Amino acid sequence: MTIQLYDLAAADERILFSPFCWRVRMALLHKGLPFAVAPWRFSAREATAASGHDAVPVLRDGERWVGDSWDIVTYLDETYPARPALLPPPSGAAHARLVGALCGSLVFPAAVAIAVYQAWRILDADSQPYFRASREKMFGCSLEALHAEEGEGRAGLARALKPFDEVLAVHDYLGGAAPTHADYMLFGVLKWTDIVSSYDPIDHATPSGRWFDRLQASHGGYAASAPTVRG
Amino acid sequence: MTIQLYDLAAADERILFSPFCWRVRMALLHKGLPFAVAPWRFSAREATAASGHDAVPVLRDGERWVGDSWDIVTYLDETYPARPALLPPPSGAAHARLVGALCGSLVFPAAVAIAVYQAWRILDADSQPYFRASREKMFGCSLEALHAEEGEGRAGLARALKPFDEVLAVHDYLGGAAPTHADYMLFGVLKWTDIVSSYDPIDHATPSGRWFDRLQASHGGYAASAPTVRG
Repeated sequence: MTIQLYDLAAADERILFSPFCWRVRMALLHKGLPFAVAPWRFSAREATAASGHDAVPVLRDGERWVGDSWDIVTYLDETYPARPALLPPPSGAAHARLVGALCGSLVFPAAVAIAVYQAWRILDADSQPYFRASREKMFGCSLEALHAEEGEGRAGLARALKPFDEVLAVHDYLGGAAPTHADYMLFGVLKWTDIVSSYDPIDHATPSGRWFDRLQASHGGYAASAPTVRG
Repeated sequence: MTIQLYDLAAADERILFSPFCWRVRMALLHKGLPFAVAPWRFSAREATAASGHDAVPVLRDGERWVGDSWDIVTYLDETYPARPALLPPPSGAAHARLVGALCGSLVFPAAVAIAVYQAWRILDADSQPYFRASREKMFGCSLEALHAEEGEGRAGLARALKPFDEVLAVHDYLGGAAPTHADYMLFGVLKWTDIVSSYDPIDHATPSGRWFDRLQASHGGYAASAPTVRG
């Protein structure tokens, strides 16, 4: 039975934009595991009620439900050890966690200013009130107040990516010569931003911009071909 | 012939404090390679003239001279592949580079405020004018203006270490269950700060503080037993 990935959808259900779901989607491609996407909405959480999780990503693999993007990734490496490792020993898990910590302290704060208001705009009307209330509580201001215009948004994101630029000026991927989940931790945040933003948020002339484009093109251009609000 | 490590010394030549030399010293211990330290001073650079490098660390391994801490570490892994890897494949080099980038953008700026003025104080009188002039040019202010008092210095360093705390709350080392050069990249910066500071700059109750103490205790307490300005 094909793995099912429950994934946050916009009102237009072709637009799948959650950063945490993108981490998992890239992880499934990396493992070479076939999967089908089940669009999920805040306004219809009952779809994953059987999993015990009320947020996505949630994965169903046969009779097994797994939630939380990090738990899903460790599940995939443990369950499918013969396929390419996401968290290769000895350091893969600690390395990916460091990238995750930097996403939290550096990259998400810059990306939020580009993406959160735009994400609200593209949700279905029934999901919007929950999303607005929960995010305005989280950030302590209105979604509109959070929103950065193009120049400011792109400059802030470029600044946040500078430590990664130093690595990616030398190595093709954060994982070295090939991507690991360290790469997908960061890619998920940028792909979310890219999909929902009204402008292209990525500076493609930087090492991290070129790395983003390499991952966009990987697996037959899977990520590059995902619909965005810009088409 | 035992490896010679040319290492920056204070006026009291038992005090060896360079962050880059500490990275190399921990790397040599990790590889289990015997080495002897040759104290080096800015006022007597001719000691390493034959290497083509006018800054330390410089390593002499038989007839081979190697300078620059990163080049020394890659030399050690290439030359002694049967000994424990510092940059274990597939991601060790890219991982250590990411930690190096974070040292540059987060940790050094916090550590400099604690350590640079103190480092000047403990140098031999003939090295002090060069050190003051080069560092005041580098930072654009006097060493005294750079200096942070205890509360401010410790708080700034603790803030800079927060991304590492997230990893070290789960893993014993940045490299996972055992240290890699990713660990020594950060340890070198903190050990420098620890040795020259007039106060203990480390919050030993945090995950990164406990990690620092684990590395201090490693290899028979080698780093813990190194003389500091506090004794």
